[in-house]
Amino acid sequence: MTTMKIAQCQLPVPVDKSETIALLERTFSEIAPLGVDFVMFPEMFCCPYQVENFPRYAEEEQGPMWKACSDLARAHHVNFSAGSMPERDPSGQIHNTAYVFDRSGRQVAKHRKMHLFDIDVRGGQRFKESETLAAGNAVTTFETEFGTFGLCVCYDFRFPELGRLMALDGAQVILVPAAFNMTTGPAHWETMFRSQALNNQVFAIGTAPARDETASYISWGHSIVTDPWGQVVSQMDEKPGVCVAELNLSRVHDVREQLPLLKHLRTDVYELVRTHGA
Amino acid sequence: MTTMKIAQCQLPVPVDKSETIALLERTFSEIAPLGVDFVMFPEMFCCPYQVENFPRYAEEEQGPMWKACSDLARAHHVNFSAGSMPERDPSGQIHNTAYVFDRSGRQVAKHRKMHLFDIDVRGGQRFKESETLAAGNAVTTFETEFGTFGLCVCYDFRFPELGRLMALDGAQVILVPAAFNMTTGPAHWETMFRSQALNNQVFAIGTAPARDETASYISWGHSIVTDPWGQVVSQMDEKPGVCVAELNLSRVHDVREQLPLLKHLRTDVYELVRTHGA
Repeated sequence: MTTMKIAQCQLPVPVDKSETIALLERTFSEIAPLGVDFVMFPEMFCCPYQVENFPRYAEEEQGPMWKACSDLARAHHVNFSAGSMPERDPSGQIHNTAYVFDRSGRQVAKHRKMHLFDIDVRGGQRFKESETLAAGNAVTTFETEFGTFGLCVCYDFRFPELGRLMALDGAQVILVPAAFNMTTGPAHWETMFRSQALNNQVFAIGTAPARDETASYISWGHSIVTDPWGQVVSQMDEKPGVCVAELNLSRVHDVREQLPLLKHLRTDVYELVRTHGA
Repeated sequence: MTTMKIAQCQLPVPVDKSETIALLERTFSEIAPLGVDFVMFPEMFCCPYQVENFPRYAEEEQGPMWKACSDLARAHHVNFSAGSMPERDPSGQIHNTAYVFDRSGRQVAKHRKMHLFDIDVRGGQRFKESETLAAGNAVTTFETEFGTFGLCVCYDFRFPELGRLMALDGAQVILVPAAFNMTTGPAHWETMFRSQALNNQVFAIGTAPARDETASYISWGHSIVTDPWGQVVSQMDEKPGVCVAELNLSRVHDVREQLPLLKHLRTDVYELVRTHGA
């Protein structure tokens, strides 16, 4: 039995980056006694979620925020899924990018959000990421001490294709820094995580910012862990906090043996193929 | 606004075929005053769900049970999704086959279950359809007076690929004669329907047999209608009955406009392709 302890940090998003770094440091120190294997922060944990903020807050890979995250992983000897942050690429385009660092502070995964969130619900949420962001083009899996993990950002996980591709690439756990809102959160958040976990027989872990009613985009919160049988292991409410979950990773193998969905795919009738170098 | 009224008939499965035909006739007569557009029966409504029964109860297409169904649709001038029944094909293989008839009694759709249900949950459900059934090889959509519909059978709908292919073929409503059990029902039934409806922004309609605690395979019941926003429109309990739902089909267009998931597919990175003549 392989168990993994993960701490989801559902925290507010400071306006000021130095406050964010102080919050990161304080949080890592506070949870140090818990002996977790992974720390996870939410989507855009260091940039209030507004299209005009993405270019303003963007840094290059290995910029100051990236470095603060790498340093914290190394200092606390813990794996760190550093939510996502706006990344300025060498061509000047901005991406919504998730980084993961291992216990030595080495970057082991990088995922640029590949489905941009453009929504316009009558009487509900409007948002258009594509106004300032460019999309990534790669499906992301990576190796950890616990096996293969997948990584994507929020709206990416709406697409069953992406969950499936990560599972076919060997993912047993999928990390999803995210930030649903007050329209899509109550309607879709839990169903999305449960169904991706169930269909791909993986642990699916979504970490969101705490709710701030004064923000222009109000986070639903409800950071969640779902298991390979599609059950909710833990789900927070909307308030700031840290939730620690212990995952028994052998559950992935068990469930896949009892209900062999991935073996029952009819690849002689349909197949999900890569159309890109990714 | 286009509305459609559908009657889901969650009824017991008689052991004797003449009883099934009597039950069909009685049910159609009883619901005639309701003025529904569609009548829907569950998976294997005329064959107690056991692998050894499939060959025993099987008939060829246009056999007596098929004919009874076609006659009822014509006599009552109603569209009829005649659940599924065991079909013996010309080569002698048996399939779990769903037929749909239009108001004139003409067969407008036929789907052979393409993912066979082989499961072995420790302390839970065991079943192996592949012992006596052969799988179909086609994705099924068809035209109705209300637009394009999709059709599949129970375990087929576990696979997001199939829901997606039907949606890409234009389906706005997906009919799923089904029979989950006491292990998978409480765990997965509602999540499966909500997620397929939500991801493909369609109405997804699952009709199951009523629960019979004395049966060898015990149906979960809970016949369900889910809408393109992933919400449950109606869900029955486990008891025999008929549930009428009225669907506003313009909701498909509305939801797709507000949250354009199907337009956001990254077919430049991945694509679901047909590998078969289907």
